[in-house]
Amino acid sequence: MSQIDAAVEYLRQHRQEHLEWVRALCRIPSISTQDAHQQDVRRAAEWTRDLCKRIGLQHVEVHETARHPLVYADWCKAAPGAPTYLVYGHVDVQPEGERKLWDADPFDPVVRGEWLICRGSADDKGQVLLYLRAAQAWLQTAGKLPINLKFLIEGEEEIGSPSLPPFVKTHRDLLLCDGVLISDTGMYEDGLPTITYGTRGLSYKEIRLRGPKHNLHSGQHGGPVVNPADALARIIASLHDEHGRVTIPGFYDGVMDLFPEERRQFAALPFDEKRYAADLGVPALVGGEQEFTVNERRWVRPTLDVNGVYGGYMAEGASTVIPAMAGAKVSMRLVPNQSAEEISRSFEEAVLARCPAGVRMEILDHTCADPYVTPLEWKAMHAAKTALKEAFGRETVFVREGGTLPILPMFRQVLHADSLMLGFASPHCNAHGPNEKARLPDLDRGAEAIARLFALLG
Amino acid sequence: MSQIDAAVEYLRQHRQEHLEWVRALCRIPSISTQDAHQQDVRRAAEWTRDLCKRIGLQHVEVHETARHPLVYADWCKAAPGAPTYLVYGHVDVQPEGERKLWDADPFDPVVRGEWLICRGSADDKGQVLLYLRAAQAWLQTAGKLPINLKFLIEGEEEIGSPSLPPFVKTHRDLLLCDGVLISDTGMYEDGLPTITYGTRGLSYKEIRLRGPKHNLHSGQHGGPVVNPADALARIIASLHDEHGRVTIPGFYDGVMDLFPEERRQFAALPFDEKRYAADLGVPALVGGEQEFTVNERRWVRPTLDVNGVYGGYMAEGASTVIPAMAGAKVSMRLVPNQSAEEISRSFEEAVLARCPAGVRMEILDHTCADPYVTPLEWKAMHAAKTALKEAFGRETVFVREGGTLPILPMFRQVLHADSLMLGFASPHCNAHGPNEKARLPDLDRGAEAIARLFALLG
Repeated sequence: MSQIDAAVEYLRQHRQEHLEWVRALCRIPSISTQDAHQQDVRRAAEWTRDLCKRIGLQHVEVHETARHPLVYADWCKAAPGAPTYLVYGHVDVQPEGERKLWDADPFDPVVRGEWLICRGSADDKGQVLLYLRAAQAWLQTAGKLPINLKFLIEGEEEIGSPSLPPFVKTHRDLLLCDGVLISDTGMYEDGLPTITYGTRGLSYKEIRLRGPKHNLHSGQHGGPVVNPADALARIIASLHDEHGRVTIPGFYDGVMDLFPEERRQFAALPFDEKRYAADLGVPALVGGEQEFTVNERRWVRPTLDVNGVYGGYMAEGASTVIPAMAGAKVSMRLVPNQSAEEISRSFEEAVLARCPAGVRMEILDHTCADPYVTPLEWKAMHAAKTALKEAFGRETVFVREGGTLPILPMFRQVLHADSLMLGFASPHCNAHGPNEKARLPDLDRGAEAIARLFALLG
Repeated sequence: MSQIDAAVEYLRQHRQEHLEWVRALCRIPSISTQDAHQQDVRRAAEWTRDLCKRIGLQHVEVHETARHPLVYADWCKAAPGAPTYLVYGHVDVQPEGERKLWDADPFDPVVRGEWLICRGSADDKGQVLLYLRAAQAWLQTAGKLPINLKFLIEGEEEIGSPSLPPFVKTHRDLLLCDGVLISDTGMYEDGLPTITYGTRGLSYKEIRLRGPKHNLHSGQHGGPVVNPADALARIIASLHDEHGRVTIPGFYDGVMDLFPEERRQFAALPFDEKRYAADLGVPALVGGEQEFTVNERRWVRPTLDVNGVYGGYMAEGASTVIPAMAGAKVSMRLVPNQSAEEISRSFEEAVLARCPAGVRMEILDHTCADPYVTPLEWKAMHAAKTALKEAFGRETVFVREGGTLPILPMFRQVLHADSLMLGFASPHCNAHGPNEKARLPDLDRGAEAIARLFALLG
């Protein structure tokens, strides 16, 4: 039996034990955004540290940060010349939300058929453990790994990873690697191996328009007074033209065109537009640039969305006021090679120039993160494709993701390393929502694919 | 001494007693919108009933309504052929708001110099009592009134007078009159006698746009999904053209042009645009139709204002959602001879037609009230002008009011009676706000003017 076959066999024999790992970690309600769970986030880190030690990793340590601790561990005894990969993941979770929307206790994992139901099962506890499962299998069977592995497992992903960039910068030498392995994304369909090779950037701003010093009687003063809510609506309306294109000057200048091959690949993906619209509950998918497909519009085209709007009398019934203030939260999803900083500045200039007389404008900055694309020709991508095919028996699909992972451009900038995103979460996993769940056969095959990937990268 | 001189002299001699009436009525916290004060509104009605009896009115009765009681009283023994006037007023008040903003107890009236400070001193207890002061003066000196007087004093004005129209309709015969006398408006300047001869109508709507069935991740779905907050902004922005004119089809069709005489009168009023802007805290008065003056824009031109806007993530910070819903409260102030019902219908049609594909629209109706203008040639207007000049020693100014009094078109429609609005509240009275106050010399001269008016109408 080859080393790889032995490792895969080990994984099959230890399925039950590995499932218990996931259940144990998911029992810890490590909700990073809630102060009441601060100790739980620490417990999740300590539990992870203990597991890393148990399976034979080295330099295992819980590192303190400004808020929640993170875990570092490695195994760097591979043959000379073997590459080094950094596994990134997180063991913090989103709040469970309304308990009554759950069919089970969110922190008491239950298995129903093929599914493991609990908070963190998909995002990201169930996925990050796949790398520890695969590492254990190698260490227990071959006594070594075919590559050097470093683990960086944090507890702040769900609050935007505030401590990660400073940690990576100050621990650059410790973390240096040939590439980053991340499983925190999803599968395009259950059982369909999926590599996500791009994320959009994000520039998130808030516009506030102030008019009168307090809400005015709209009868006594309506007419001569510029209404901040009306002025805001005009500014928002001006942000797109009639073709659904964003009107910020220079917005599309950096946008990279899709390779024809990518267009073909996306077009070949199974996609039922009617069903997608029905799932979201929208009557039509007519937003954005009509000359692009739905998946292109949500993955590879930059967009601008109003995320929230407020002002004046917002409660039930009627109140005849001219609002003293109206505000809008506006964010732009950016694609390679748009610069989040440049777009952020252009937005600010354009919006300030559109502020009418009679009101004053203030702009707040919330987020500024660059887009990221994994090079399609990177050899780790090819290795992953092969490993996935061996484990799942199906060809891998390559997709992009409309959301934002600010750590990807950060890893590239600080560590000069690209990231390989192998996602094993179900499209029905309902991460962040009630009844979060993971599909166990995909987790198992995921562990196998990762064990195979180690060999192929070595 | 003539009868009118005797009545005026009586008023002068009983100033202190009449001031005590105002203080006694203002001590009752008759806040109509708060259930906890239900008994206080009743007490205010009963106190008013008792005063009406004490000064010699007839048919004095507290009438029950669906919510707060109202008081009716009359004196209809004037010489044959004498006209009949209906005095309308209210003895309920607005909540006191934040107590710490008051310099004194809002329900413990204090006199500071020329001012009486307390809730209700100006709006409307201090003003409605002027008619009882004048009636008492006549009855105590001449033993009769020169005209027939009816009193209709309600306790629901501050909550929109829901019981008044049904009461007036079912008591039409009881209330029939040649005109309505109302003192619930203000003076253009302290000491400057002012007749308000027009109010704007109101059509108040709420637009709700629904897109996805719940808030969506703006990264995963931003692009193909039509954003309800963006669609709403486009609709709001479309409601005015670049000249500040409302774009609802037919909106201006019924609008009556100002008489040249009115324009001249308004232009002659003292008005410091810079100071008005500074008082409101706005950088410029560039709203609405620039070819009209500020007072014209707020009094006699129809307007459309956003009163509130809401949708998506409205709290502090950032959340990357596409809102499931966004809404706006939009109201239009209407002028003669716009029909509130017609405008309301045109608005609905126009806005529905502007609803883009990809979202669904719902429109709620809040208020629909017609504008009102007192005929300038009405003889009661001339009589009032003379009475005011005799009492204040200054010429009366005629102004309009941008706000809405739905009872005025209701009185015209049900009783076929026009309304004379003699306002004695100071422009600094801060009705509805903290430290509401009335200027005592103007209340005293107001009582005198009303006593003189009775004679002139007779």
